[in-house]
Amino acid sequence: MCHTVAVTEHIDHTLRGRWTTTAGPLPPHALKWLRERTGLGEVRTPARAPVAPESALGDAARTALGEVVGPGYVRVDPDSRLGRAGGLSYVDLLRQRGDGEPAVPDAVVLPASPEQVVEVLEVCVEHDVAVVPFGGGTSVVGGVNALRGDKAAVVALDLNRLDKLVEVDPVSRLAVLQAGLPAPKAERLLAAHGLTIGHVPQSYERATIGGFAATRSAGQASAGYGRFEDMVEGVRLATPVGEWRLGGAPASAAGPDLKQLVVGSEGAFGVITEVALRVRRRPEVERYEGFVVDGWERGSALVREVAQRRVPADVTRLSDVDETEVSLALGGGWKVNALKGYLKARGVREPCLLVLGWHGASKREVARRRAETLRGVEALSLGKALGEAWRHGRFNGPRQRDALMEVGVCVETLETATHWSKVSDLRAAVREALVDALGRCVVMCHISHVYETGASLYFTVLAARDAADPIGQWQVAKAAASEAITGLGTISHHHAVGADHAPYLEAEIGRLGLDVLASVKRTLDPTGVLNPGKLLAGDIGAAGLASPGDR
Amino acid sequence: MCHTVAVTEHIDHTLRGRWTTTAGPLPPHALKWLRERTGLGEVRTPARAPVAPESALGDAARTALGEVVGPGYVRVDPDSRLGRAGGLSYVDLLRQRGDGEPAVPDAVVLPASPEQVVEVLEVCVEHDVAVVPFGGGTSVVGGVNALRGDKAAVVALDLNRLDKLVEVDPVSRLAVLQAGLPAPKAERLLAAHGLTIGHVPQSYERATIGGFAATRSAGQASAGYGRFEDMVEGVRLATPVGEWRLGGAPASAAGPDLKQLVVGSEGAFGVITEVALRVRRRPEVERYEGFVVDGWERGSALVREVAQRRVPADVTRLSDVDETEVSLALGGGWKVNALKGYLKARGVREPCLLVLGWHGASKREVARRRAETLRGVEALSLGKALGEAWRHGRFNGPRQRDALMEVGVCVETLETATHWSKVSDLRAAVREALVDALGRCVVMCHISHVYETGASLYFTVLAARDAADPIGQWQVAKAAASEAITGLGTISHHHAVGADHAPYLEAEIGRLGLDVLASVKRTLDPTGVLNPGKLLAGDIGAAGLASPGDR
Repeated sequence: MCHTVAVTEHIDHTLRGRWTTTAGPLPPHALKWLRERTGLGEVRTPARAPVAPESALGDAARTALGEVVGPGYVRVDPDSRLGRAGGLSYVDLLRQRGDGEPAVPDAVVLPASPEQVVEVLEVCVEHDVAVVPFGGGTSVVGGVNALRGDKAAVVALDLNRLDKLVEVDPVSRLAVLQAGLPAPKAERLLAAHGLTIGHVPQSYERATIGGFAATRSAGQASAGYGRFEDMVEGVRLATPVGEWRLGGAPASAAGPDLKQLVVGSEGAFGVITEVALRVRRRPEVERYEGFVVDGWERGSALVREVAQRRVPADVTRLSDVDETEVSLALGGGWKVNALKGYLKARGVREPCLLVLGWHGASKREVARRRAETLRGVEALSLGKALGEAWRHGRFNGPRQRDALMEVGVCVETLETATHWSKVSDLRAAVREALVDALGRCVVMCHISHVYETGASLYFTVLAARDAADPIGQWQVAKAAASEAITGLGTISHHHAVGADHAPYLEAEIGRLGLDVLASVKRTLDPTGVLNPGKLLAGDIGAAGLASPGDR
Repeated sequence: MCHTVAVTEHIDHTLRGRWTTTAGPLPPHALKWLRERTGLGEVRTPARAPVAPESALGDAARTALGEVVGPGYVRVDPDSRLGRAGGLSYVDLLRQRGDGEPAVPDAVVLPASPEQVVEVLEVCVEHDVAVVPFGGGTSVVGGVNALRGDKAAVVALDLNRLDKLVEVDPVSRLAVLQAGLPAPKAERLLAAHGLTIGHVPQSYERATIGGFAATRSAGQASAGYGRFEDMVEGVRLATPVGEWRLGGAPASAAGPDLKQLVVGSEGAFGVITEVALRVRRRPEVERYEGFVVDGWERGSALVREVAQRRVPADVTRLSDVDETEVSLALGGGWKVNALKGYLKARGVREPCLLVLGWHGASKREVARRRAETLRGVEALSLGKALGEAWRHGRFNGPRQRDALMEVGVCVETLETATHWSKVSDLRAAVREALVDALGRCVVMCHISHVYETGASLYFTVLAARDAADPIGQWQVAKAAASEAITGLGTISHHHAVGADHAPYLEAEIGRLGLDVLASVKRTLDPTGVLNPGKLLAGDIGAAGLASPGDR
């Protein structure tokens, strides 16, 4: 998977290492287009360096933690702490750029082994310290914000020293990987065995194996490789009451699948330290191709039919008319005018870009799979160049966002999923909610994960930032979109719950669902040190948990 | 799926309706072979009618239940109660045939709607009555035995009046089905929409939709259609603390997948009343074909390779040498001697039968899929007749078992699953344990479910029954097999935990796993009325549950 990607072996968590500082400027034609479409003014909003508050971690706790991981791996310097002050949501970035206060951990603790993680949790329980597991720090839902709940202090538990490929079973196509492994390094280590995970979300360059599991991640090739939870065959979880290991068979009827309770637990039930993954032979050939379909309804019917025939491309990505227009407007490299003329000549009124990608062991296999996918399909091929252009730019979203933020744009994404019969209604409802909340703005949408019964919807929003209350501006829009989603789809297809979606979880899983999650948390984390305020809202996630009878 | 199958629209739960009484006699050549191989004597052990003890259900509880479901649907007659006295394990059947005491419910309660199920549970909590959810009654692990735990009485909650197809969404390929629907009726109702579930376990003729979900069932075509849990998109669960609904999206990252906590909960967390299932277009063409492979290692490597290339046949079933020998010895209809001669002439020393089956929309699609599966595969085709013979007999196992029991045979099956690198070790370990425990016996094994990372192993055992202690004889053998499985594979691939596997669950999911399950049970079933002694061992499943701190 990773041979076309810059391999990030070590994640730089200093402030300098964040994407924010690596963004290039926005090209003039893009800026002009943005101003026309959103009413954006001639502003520059460079980042101001945030300031870390005094660390609240007591000396006794600090010493005890140092005894577990080594004193050099308990860091209280401002740069280390600010580098783990939240994730990469628009609001997180605003806070890190000087709008509002980031939630800064009191220390960063870097254990070197699963055993050390268990010991760190024991120390944190003893010293009343909240623990935020931290891998790539790419959460966009507030999942790694250093909230302390009702604890005396909060530490970021940075897992990046847990970066080993523990075991490979080539016969069973299984690999055991430590949680802190960055995805590109995991792929490099597996490539030496001819294997791949095949999990490539947009966060790929910085994200970790443990983070994928903790958040039920879905990669861009999910139609071919499955979601991350489909790959997890075993987990090793450190909890305040001891270590819990699950796995050992490809499938089981030995009661409920408890792995699926750990996958998606977002650090609230324990710290994932190792994951056993189903892996595959690395593909020899990858082919990406661009197509155009006339109209959203036709496009979504097309990808639905292919998914239901069970011959989807590994990568399947359909943009709506607005996203297609933006791609054409901003993507000067694609000989855009010629393309527009071509589409007009072919009578395409509402062009929707469709990118399909197939992996295989040989050109022949890829050609055969492509033919299967495209049998009877009405889509106009625009050739491999457009597919390759998508592939080369597919991790650039966050970098583009940083450039946009520099010039005063409110820019964020959100996502959901629903069954096919509700896909168009859900897309319309979210669009309407966002436009109502933000006024003059651009709302783009694409389907990038297809299933037999439904699909994901991924929205990107661009508006002129409200300089007076940039955080409030987005929170109103996000709330409106979340309300629109509730009842029609899931509050998250692959971004997880974090702090931002926690208020909407009850509508999705019911009061009993929250009670069940709370009971599991009470069992594994009786004093509530683990990631307070994430997944479960604060009143449930904290210590002094209400018992089911109290509601 | 069901057009080749006798359609069971209503499950007859009277004693007369059980398979036991519909079995034909064993053919003479089979009996002769059995006597040679197992030392079976010239005995006949006809069933003696069991006697139902007095019902312990109090008048107040009976009246209250009658007010919910109608007085005619609270049945205390011996025939109704004996008809729900356990499932279809060898030990259950022995008890029903007069060896040992079956666990007979004090009454059979037949609600007509999901709402009535919730009300029944309220009444049972109020009157201290244990509840055993009962669908097809096909459990082979003691999952429906009427244990009362510490309750005053126990009722079988027969779900067979919940037999509606509630909703079909043909665009999303989703169907909502009530839990008591027998599988053949569910298929008939869906066939009217051109749809199928495609879930065909050996229990198909009698089993219900709710039972499939409660036990994480896997059907014979699991390689093509997935396991039952892969099809479940939503559940409606009646619990003593209210109703819980889950589902609404094809995939989600909104926290842990709680559906996978309900699927496999075996009636211990609640009563599944409705299931939303992913369905597929009914195949127009099905092709089954027999093959022979020389030796188990070669055969298992073959099915592994096909599974890892992701081109498995929908049905994939590899018998070991012993099972193949028995099939040839007992299957007079296949022109067995000619076949044996043919195999000898082809130099096949250790014949292992392989049955593959493909479904598709057309002959062409099936031919194409067959070619994909067989590309580069070294297996000798024996033609379609053998495949069709397997298909026609594929639900006959239980009937054959009844005939065997009549003539004094100890006959039972058990199953597990593990990763490919451990498949042969696990098969050897279980064989050895069974032979050690039973002495002169026949142990057969097949792989019938394949995954990228591993496979199931299904064992059938034949021995001369110990007339003095038939139940003890099997319990010793089962314990030896279960010990052999522990650490190498899962205690159940698709039969579930029930009462029989509960003692082995801790070794598989850990003490924390049991604690988590117990905490979920405490939340949903605080007084422990639901299916005592199943899934969780009695001390955890009953009321007065130990808290995690007590252990």
